[in-house]
Amino acid sequence: MTRPVLAASVALAAFAASAVPVQADEGMWTFDNFPADKLEAAYSWAPDAAWLERTRLSAVRLTGGCSASFVSGEGLILTNHHCVASCLFDNSTGDNDLLKNGFIADRREDEKACPGQQAEVVMSITDVTDTVKSAFAGLEGEALTRARDAAIARIEDEGCTDRETMRCQVVTLFGGGQYKLYTYRKYSDVRLVWAPEDRAATFGGDPDNFNFPRYSLDGSFLRAYEDGRPVTPEAHLSWNPRAPEEGELTFVVGNPGSTARLMTESQRAFEREVRLPVTLATLSELRGRLISAMEVSEEREREGLDLLSGVENSLKVYIGRTTALNDPEFTGKMAAAEAELRELSADNAAIGDPWAEVDEAVQAYRALYLPYRFIDPSGDLYGYAQALVMAAQEREKPNAERLPGYTDSALPLLEKRITDERPVYPWLDELYMGWSLSKAREYLGVDDADSQLLLGKESPEQLSERLVTGTRLADPDYRRQLWEGGIAAIEASDDPMIQYALTLLPRQRELQQQVDEAYAGPLAAAGAELADARFAAYGDSLYPDATFTLRISYGQVKGWVERGNQVPIATTMGGTFERATGNPPFDLAPAFAANRDEIDPDVTYDFVTTNDIIGGNSGSPVIDRNGTVIGAAFDGNIHSLGGNYGYDGTLNRTVVVSAAAIQEALETIYPAPALVAELEAR
Amino acid sequence: MTRPVLAASVALAAFAASAVPVQADEGMWTFDNFPADKLEAAYSWAPDAAWLERTRLSAVRLTGGCSASFVSGEGLILTNHHCVASCLFDNSTGDNDLLKNGFIADRREDEKACPGQQAEVVMSITDVTDTVKSAFAGLEGEALTRARDAAIARIEDEGCTDRETMRCQVVTLFGGGQYKLYTYRKYSDVRLVWAPEDRAATFGGDPDNFNFPRYSLDGSFLRAYEDGRPVTPEAHLSWNPRAPEEGELTFVVGNPGSTARLMTESQRAFEREVRLPVTLATLSELRGRLISAMEVSEEREREGLDLLSGVENSLKVYIGRTTALNDPEFTGKMAAAEAELRELSADNAAIGDPWAEVDEAVQAYRALYLPYRFIDPSGDLYGYAQALVMAAQEREKPNAERLPGYTDSALPLLEKRITDERPVYPWLDELYMGWSLSKAREYLGVDDADSQLLLGKESPEQLSERLVTGTRLADPDYRRQLWEGGIAAIEASDDPMIQYALTLLPRQRELQQQVDEAYAGPLAAAGAELADARFAAYGDSLYPDATFTLRISYGQVKGWVERGNQVPIATTMGGTFERATGNPPFDLAPAFAANRDEIDPDVTYDFVTTNDIIGGNSGSPVIDRNGTVIGAAFDGNIHSLGGNYGYDGTLNRTVVVSAAAIQEALETIYPAPALVAELEAR
Repeated sequence: MTRPVLAASVALAAFAASAVPVQADEGMWTFDNFPADKLEAAYSWAPDAAWLERTRLSAVRLTGGCSASFVSGEGLILTNHHCVASCLFDNSTGDNDLLKNGFIADRREDEKACPGQQAEVVMSITDVTDTVKSAFAGLEGEALTRARDAAIARIEDEGCTDRETMRCQVVTLFGGGQYKLYTYRKYSDVRLVWAPEDRAATFGGDPDNFNFPRYSLDGSFLRAYEDGRPVTPEAHLSWNPRAPEEGELTFVVGNPGSTARLMTESQRAFEREVRLPVTLATLSELRGRLISAMEVSEEREREGLDLLSGVENSLKVYIGRTTALNDPEFTGKMAAAEAELRELSADNAAIGDPWAEVDEAVQAYRALYLPYRFIDPSGDLYGYAQALVMAAQEREKPNAERLPGYTDSALPLLEKRITDERPVYPWLDELYMGWSLSKAREYLGVDDADSQLLLGKESPEQLSERLVTGTRLADPDYRRQLWEGGIAAIEASDDPMIQYALTLLPRQRELQQQVDEAYAGPLAAAGAELADARFAAYGDSLYPDATFTLRISYGQVKGWVERGNQVPIATTMGGTFERATGNPPFDLAPAFAANRDEIDPDVTYDFVTTNDIIGGNSGSPVIDRNGTVIGAAFDGNIHSLGGNYGYDGTLNRTVVVSAAAIQEALETIYPAPALVAELEAR
Repeated sequence: MTRPVLAASVALAAFAASAVPVQADEGMWTFDNFPADKLEAAYSWAPDAAWLERTRLSAVRLTGGCSASFVSGEGLILTNHHCVASCLFDNSTGDNDLLKNGFIADRREDEKACPGQQAEVVMSITDVTDTVKSAFAGLEGEALTRARDAAIARIEDEGCTDRETMRCQVVTLFGGGQYKLYTYRKYSDVRLVWAPEDRAATFGGDPDNFNFPRYSLDGSFLRAYEDGRPVTPEAHLSWNPRAPEEGELTFVVGNPGSTARLMTESQRAFEREVRLPVTLATLSELRGRLISAMEVSEEREREGLDLLSGVENSLKVYIGRTTALNDPEFTGKMAAAEAELRELSADNAAIGDPWAEVDEAVQAYRALYLPYRFIDPSGDLYGYAQALVMAAQEREKPNAERLPGYTDSALPLLEKRITDERPVYPWLDELYMGWSLSKAREYLGVDDADSQLLLGKESPEQLSERLVTGTRLADPDYRRQLWEGGIAAIEASDDPMIQYALTLLPRQRELQQQVDEAYAGPLAAAGAELADARFAAYGDSLYPDATFTLRISYGQVKGWVERGNQVPIATTMGGTFERATGNPPFDLAPAFAANRDEIDPDVTYDFVTTNDIIGGNSGSPVIDRNGTVIGAAFDGNIHSLGGNYGYDGTLNRTVVVSAAAIQEALETIYPAPALVAELEAR
């Protein structure tokens, strides 16, 4: 599934800059730099400004890490099933497993709130590059990152006076080449409307994930509310439940999470040599721990499913990246692109040697990486504690001096995430936290000072059990009380998880500072130079690396050749019944089995396009040239996993659940006549 | 622990050939090519022929995958605790957990048989290179491997007429540069005499494994029997429970399992790019599955421990190898060595281009690797089935036409392994088999023909449950019945596991044939050329890669510098009490806690030497220049994990449990006065 991969540690902005020789259909373009000429040249057509504006105003970012779109004038939102899985999970109980059974709100008042979820629409994009860059001119290392972050906090603060309905975010593009202020209309009350059974969406499970041909109903609907009423968005897309045509032009509009397409050689070496092996081994162990722990009972099977799915999805992504970076042909192209840019920049006196600066920063980061990665234990309860403690401390400072993520513009969403009611399963949190502590000890070593800070004399299992059992943080009222009580409440708390977070925080801050000084600061400076080098060499019709901000990609409905065999563009719903074995994860969803005779076998189910997407794009509307929505992107094929580093138009594909299949489900399998009427009203 | 790593698939002989610029103390030397001059030059002393012969005759190979030595005239054998852990485990019951509690046989008649274990002593080494090489002269691919294997079967058959007490094995050295017939005196009745509590041996558990300073009592005693009586070996080592002296010369005599020190660049690339990432991810998941499954009950904790320890040990080895092959400084040295040999061979007309031949073979192997790796499911019960079926089919053929492992010289040990009584835990076998099938499907893909052959329409969990539940192979009598009944019994059997093995076998044979044709055959030919190139360039004072056959290494008692700090040569028993936290795996073994006041805190516990060893050397006697045994090698430090590819004398260390510590344990902690008297009798 094309959802953002689990960050194994605090994610630092990877280098972002446009790929050099942009291939046909390559690119995750910003709306303020849409390559209309390029598209016109390739497809003899390009959208006009009105088309682009309507599309932008219809596009929704879901803060849970997905993309979506308005598809009715009453705030109805189309996205993927896997983007609402957490919401289904959070609203489930032992008696009523919404994730497993699916959900249909017969009436508006039955629609269910999604904890932590917020819908956001881009209203404007403003260039603030000069303001930010001049704030840190002449500075280095941590001083640079502090000055930069202060400037950003100020711009965000001034940009959005109404924090109830607006959100301001300065986005770093091209690894520091550009800074843009994105202003969002936000809707912080998002509710569940319709979702199929989990097995309908996850038919084929992990084995079929990132594969095609595929038979997945990975679509769902949400609705945005404000003041208890459905919102009327400024624009929405028309629903068009038709079959795609081979070769037709398609647009995917959404929020690709992150890419690292113009990492330098030393950055890719770090990924391949250090980060990916550690990630593969540790995440695989977590997967195994979850699989066995969930077999204990049906209850645990249900309670662990959301985390396991996320882990398996991320693991598949990391395995795909490992494969890509261990493919000499693939990496050879990147090395060649770097060599070309170096050559083109050789005579440009304005460009120093940013590659050497990056090398040095990466070298320094290698020494900091393991403690920096492992100093943050995992687990929902620890996560609440850390955010509460950090927020309380940061809120004591003036806005411009706070760490990113704790500025005034960021606090409302953080508060919502901390205080929204969500179920916590102690066995699961213990497992997750215990695993992370045991991996910390393994990679740092028993005698390491950070290892000892994390564990004291306790074992990972004991410590996590003691903290999870002893904390009151599963109670949202208690979390609200601590949030509102600020630093005084935190320091007075005898909650063991809060106290644990307080113990770790000084060292976490110290490591962050060291990383900023030796790595993030130098990267920001070098990133700006590298971006300048690229603009000088290739002009400004480039796209930046993905940053979980709104992008548009164009492409076409097209199969590919897999080991000599042509893969067709689409599957049909009838194919599901042929692929089913009766055994998980290839067992039919009960409603599919029950309605087998009613389901039209010829309806297009899933299809593929050449659009350039990545995790975070999940739920993105797939739009035809008329601006109508013909599906929702939910995955990439296996080749697209290397897309983090580079796009290969012959192999990389977006996988889409068709609007036609969703329509068939709404009519025949999971009937929702009111919803059908709402979609048809357009 | 320096035990052989779990083979994730059938291990093909890796290239074996001596390292080029042999460093001080580097080398796992064969007894028929001991570098006395080199040692004399470095240490002004070298053992004479009598010393070497006595040592060789005292050295024991344990077919379970370890090394050992006779230390009394009554067949007493010194080895590691972790080498007898499976025996303790197999002799344990819910009521009497020998692994946990340790074991002391007060009387000879209490000594307990170790299933599958056999002790072997090298009696002679004969060069058969010409006979083998001439048998395949002019052949290629699979024809070459068939002719070679037939010649080997013939030599082994003719070499050992008495199969009750002798074993003959032709060993391929230098990747095909030499073939030597090793003749062993074998003792197939090996019994447990003395073992400390598991926690005394595994204090610090997985976190401290492959680390030093260390506080581990990883020593145990076995005894070889014949006709129900203890054997009188031709020679044995004198027991010398003294402290080691810094800088003193030490010898380690044992059976290093395998090394890959002169892989070519393309072979190392295959390891780094393909084999290691798959291994890391899959084995880590198995580790996680075991950890959670064992938490369910104390019984499962006990039943799963042996497999988990093996998995964690292997995983640490693979992680160490990954780190080594991702260290450009380390790999740079190997690339330089290859470049030097190529240059030195450039004018040697007798040498073709073996590097290109290897490149081509590795390229072909890349395409075969995943099916070849995953076509063999894991699990004890499946393992029995496969061996029974394969043996029954192979025994129908003339000796010289059988696959290696099924020739007359190999059958007695195979029969013993299959028919010895050993406990089987169905939940564990189901987990292990289910895991391997699920990884097969993941890496081969759902739609792959091999995947479908393995699973049919069942899920991995269902299939393994059905087979493990339905089979009678846990019963040793049934296994004996099938063994003795041969092909007719196998084909008549309605046992589902036997039938499953029969289903898979044709494809397994086909893949083996393809691998022989495209990979093993070409490698054997290229290996011989590469060995010739090395002999021509560097003379014949070289050591071959490890092959789980007897070797001797020399070195000295010496610490190393770790991140600027000098690591001392030894720990003392008193240090255990300082390191103990009270929590697993840093909790004291009960007998340590109970005897704290009696244990002499100053006794040397574990110590390090520069000897060059690897997995399989576990249990090797550490011998001083007088030929007395001052300890048992049980581990390497973390740097030694790269030793698979190359030895670095500044960092690689052998970790030894001192004879002095074992003596202290025999006297004070786990008293065994008869054993002390036997050892002192010398």
